[in-house]
Amino acid sequence: MHETIGFIGLGNMGEPIAANLLHAGYRQRVYNRTKSKTARLAREGASVVDHPADVAEPGGIVLTMLADDRTLEEICYAQPSFVDRLGSGGVHLSLSTISPATARKLAKHHEEHNVEYVASPVFGRPEAAATKKLFVCTSGPAEAKKRAQPIQAAISQGVFDFGADAGAANVVKLCGNFLVAASIEALAELLTLAEKNGVSKKAVAEMIGKFSPLHAGYANLMAEGRFEPAGFRLALGMKDVNLIMDTAASSVTPMPLASLLHDRWLTGIAKGRENLDWSAIALDVDENAGIRAEAAP
Amino acid sequence: MHETIGFIGLGNMGEPIAANLLHAGYRQRVYNRTKSKTARLAREGASVVDHPADVAEPGGIVLTMLADDRTLEEICYAQPSFVDRLGSGGVHLSLSTISPATARKLAKHHEEHNVEYVASPVFGRPEAAATKKLFVCTSGPAEAKKRAQPIQAAISQGVFDFGADAGAANVVKLCGNFLVAASIEALAELLTLAEKNGVSKKAVAEMIGKFSPLHAGYANLMAEGRFEPAGFRLALGMKDVNLIMDTAASSVTPMPLASLLHDRWLTGIAKGRENLDWSAIALDVDENAGIRAEAAP
Amino acid sequence: MHETIGFIGLGNMGEPIAANLLHAGYRQRVYNRTKSKTARLAREGASVVDHPADVAEPGGIVLTMLADDRTLEEICYAQPSFVDRLGSGGVHLSLSTISPATARKLAKHHEEHNVEYVASPVFGRPEAAATKKLFVCTSGPAEAKKRAQPIQAAISQGVFDFGADAGAANVVKLCGNFLVAASIEALAELLTLAEKNGVSKKAVAEMIGKFSPLHAGYANLMAEGRFEPAGFRLALGMKDVNLIMDTAASSVTPMPLASLLHDRWLTGIAKGRENLDWSAIALDVDENAGIRAEAAP
Amino acid sequence: MHETIGFIGLGNMGEPIAANLLHAGYRQRVYNRTKSKTARLAREGASVVDHPADVAEPGGIVLTMLADDRTLEEICYAQPSFVDRLGSGGVHLSLSTISPATARKLAKHHEEHNVEYVASPVFGRPEAAATKKLFVCTSGPAEAKKRAQPIQAAISQGVFDFGADAGAANVVKLCGNFLVAASIEALAELLTLAEKNGVSKKAVAEMIGKFSPLHAGYANLMAEGRFEPAGFRLALGMKDVNLIMDTAASSVTPMPLASLLHDRWLTGIAKGRENLDWSAIALDVDENAGIRAEAAP
Repeated sequence: MHETIGFIGLGNMGEPIAANLLHAGYRQRVYNRTKSKTARLAREGASVVDHPADVAEPGGIVLTMLADDRTLEEICYAQPSFVDRLGSGGVHLSLSTISPATARKLAKHHEEHNVEYVASPVFGRPEAAATKKLFVCTSGPAEAKKRAQPIQAAISQGVFDFGADAGAANVVKLCGNFLVAASIEALAELLTLAEKNGVSKKAVAEMIGKFSPLHAGYANLMAEGRFEPAGFRLALGMKDVNLIMDTAASSVTPMPLASLLHDRWLTGIAKGRENLDWSAIALDVDENAGIRAEAAP
Repeated sequence: MHETIGFIGLGNMGEPIAANLLHAGYRQRVYNRTKSKTARLAREGASVVDHPADVAEPGGIVLTMLADDRTLEEICYAQPSFVDRLGSGGVHLSLSTISPATARKLAKHHEEHNVEYVASPVFGRPEAAATKKLFVCTSGPAEAKKRAQPIQAAISQGVFDFGADAGAANVVKLCGNFLVAASIEALAELLTLAEKNGVSKKAVAEMIGKFSPLHAGYANLMAEGRFEPAGFRLALGMKDVNLIMDTAASSVTPMPLASLLHDRWLTGIAKGRENLDWSAIALDVDENAGIRAEAAP
Repeated sequence: MHETIGFIGLGNMGEPIAANLLHAGYRQRVYNRTKSKTARLAREGASVVDHPADVAEPGGIVLTMLADDRTLEEICYAQPSFVDRLGSGGVHLSLSTISPATARKLAKHHEEHNVEYVASPVFGRPEAAATKKLFVCTSGPAEAKKRAQPIQAAISQGVFDFGADAGAANVVKLCGNFLVAASIEALAELLTLAEKNGVSKKAVAEMIGKFSPLHAGYANLMAEGRFEPAGFRLALGMKDVNLIMDTAASSVTPMPLASLLHDRWLTGIAKGRENLDWSAIALDVDENAGIRAEAAP
Repeated sequence: MHETIGFIGLGNMGEPIAANLLHAGYRQRVYNRTKSKTARLAREGASVVDHPADVAEPGGIVLTMLADDRTLEEICYAQPSFVDRLGSGGVHLSLSTISPATARKLAKHHEEHNVEYVASPVFGRPEAAATKKLFVCTSGPAEAKKRAQPIQAAISQGVFDFGADAGAANVVKLCGNFLVAASIEALAELLTLAEKNGVSKKAVAEMIGKFSPLHAGYANLMAEGRFEPAGFRLALGMKDVNLIMDTAASSVTPMPLASLLHDRWLTGIAKGRENLDWSAIALDVDENAGIRAEAAP
């Protein structure tokens, strides 16, 4: 039987991950701001606690999966926080997509409490989380990463280690998200080009799907104009693009394609599409080409 | 034994394709402007002719693989041309990457000579041509496509049919090249972002290679700074981006990412990198981030 | 009394210019494709001819003001053309906004007929043409420019001479048009920014008008949303941006702002605004910011 | 004799403004972090104080001219701060270029201390400050603006009032700076285009100078390649572009030209040009066109 671990943040991603850890034999104390989301895990044996700090035990392990930098920071800096509670020998496995700068700042704060911060952002959608098909990027202190290994293995199909710097795994996570966002923009433009030249989006999407698994899904969504329900909300895409822009600016890295994506997603927000899938920026590409774009009925 | 076919244009792509057709049992009359390039095919049994028109026989099939729209047009409109020579019942299988507009114009001109024009641009580099791993996009009259099928099968691993419009296959070919060019830009930006944030390009390229076959090769070239010898010259990339821009403009399709790629490749030309691999635009991304970029020694 | 000159092209710009030359004492033979446009000039004493070549006399001077490169070339290369008719000692004063490349090609063609080509594109709208407030950019052979001087003086408030190269004046003309187009984009973005932040476009336009005469007029048009009637049609703006793009590409000059303008005006065309004033691209900026944009009633 | 006023921030802009107020008969208590900068004002009769809070007297007026949002906030939120000291009936005339959001936040904080915040950012360089040729944008409570009027009149050639919202004047200030930054980019591109097409930058700059006072100065700097000493440092330009980007993002206003400027200035920083004049981004435009760019010797 594995040790008891703590889990904070049971949203679309956090809940299936926590469930997999239960199934793998980890006892868990779990916390979620909206308590109703804990029901399933409670039925499957998790202990539900009322305060985030209560998921931790001295020297233990806590996983977090939260919406953004600010939420994670609030929980880490709360008085008392789970970090205080973990204390010497404790490990924080941080799964959220946050900025490298925040990761480094948190790592330093953890160190002051003798807690080790292991960055572990994940690639994959909720379905991948449920089926343990995530990929994990990790970075942090070697010993702590070793201790985290069985946990990472229980929730993913592979782990990439980027060394000791707490920010490194998040840098790579943002690189990956940027590649996907750029692919969405490229697909949107080329499918509109095809349609304006008399070739159906569907025919092109089908061909691309045979070449490139990374593009297959989004090409189909766009060809079908099926942007609801959102696999990943446009507003969350905006958040990620902003993290990329901030990291680019603070590291003095001009990224004109990131700027283009920023303007594209911002237009999506301005046009009221924040709750559609983030590939719905294709509607804007169509509109600019004079195609009357509509989400599928 | 198959019929005798004609082949015009024996460059990096044309020569291995013609060789595969010889191996598949097609007798061939071949023409290349630089005659020395025909030596290997002559040894393997092809008849080398001195004028492009001479590759054709009445009612036969001619394949062309030429550098650009203008070269193909010159050969089609020459007096006499292989098109005249083919005459009624002849088929022209056009493998070059050209603009949809040129393809349509040529198709009309062929029709006036009772020759059928089958657009057949191919995806793949010279290695793929040599190993029959190309993919063919095709469009044109149904009967002629049927006649072309065994030839297309002998040189590729798959054929995608986009209907009767002569321009359609070229539209899709440009869409595909755009997707690759966009991927190169995205990779260049994200690898520079990684490096400026303390993560090696190699580590990120390795991870991306595991996710996306489309990106794997270019990510490695960039991580290693290995832009010579060129798999596909930057100057040819510029040509393709220009075809995309022209097709976008003539069909009134705003493509800001295509514009960005246009400026990036034009910068590569201005900086004297036309003979490096087209992924060498990564050097410009590095320079703009203050990284002293150099091609590998 | 001045010599008799020829004038081809009596559109919005050409007609008031020709009228001013009549008033200045130049007898004129005039030609326009749409003959009805010559009525006023005929009343004021011009001889209307039926073929463009007929405006010329041996060794004389002909002015042209035409819509685009192609129209000018057709008239210059017609058989017979006014260039043949001018012959040795003749001068062609070319007022159209065309590409430097076309200007150089025409100059060479003129030379072969011993005719001197003087590039003389003009800055200014029809009102400026009517009130002799144009500015002329000129380049070409020194002697011919000297002969052109009194004519240029009679239609403008100033002449800028850019040397002997026939293309030079058109390079500068495109630079000037680019500066105006860029100013329109900048104004559109900043006025939308103001409005989205609670400051009226009118208040900002008024302030800018006090600082910068170049921006004053367009700022007001945008603040009032008054894009009809068009002072300069959006479709003509697209033509100019295309000339800039072509000249940038052929001279290997990356101009990302020109690319941005290209995409913006192309969007305007796609959205069906080709007949509005070219500052109507501001509607697109508003739409992308979620402001329901409408031309003024 | 006027009342005694306080002045915090005696940099390139603040010092000549404070001097003009002394000459206009305002007694002053002044503070600057680097005390040596106060020497001239002390000689001319100003009282130099050691803590920013000490410039204020109950119910009085304090002017601030500081480098950025953070510096201004630190001074306003210090314990004690000049705001506490001003207390009921006091007025803060804030001349710095800051974000509208910060201005609004400060205005609220001032209100809680019964102090009135009057936004008064200024257009103009140090020379304009010295010669009272600034323009002032102002917004805030009507009574306080009335009280500020004679002070604003003593330092500028004109005042534009944008109503009661504390953020409004800063919105307009950012709009103005954006227009200038956009003009710099446009000039840089067109001058490089001219040079690559055989027309000297000087000749084009001279012509533009005759048309547009806004562009004249920068066109000359670029034509001469004279980027030192900096009239306005590239690093400060970057700061302003960042304020524009932040304000655009928070108000959901896509501004692709602002994004382009952001990338351009960031490239300037990455290339080590932060201390050159902000028009030195022209060097980057030249480099991308293959022109070996160098600052003038």
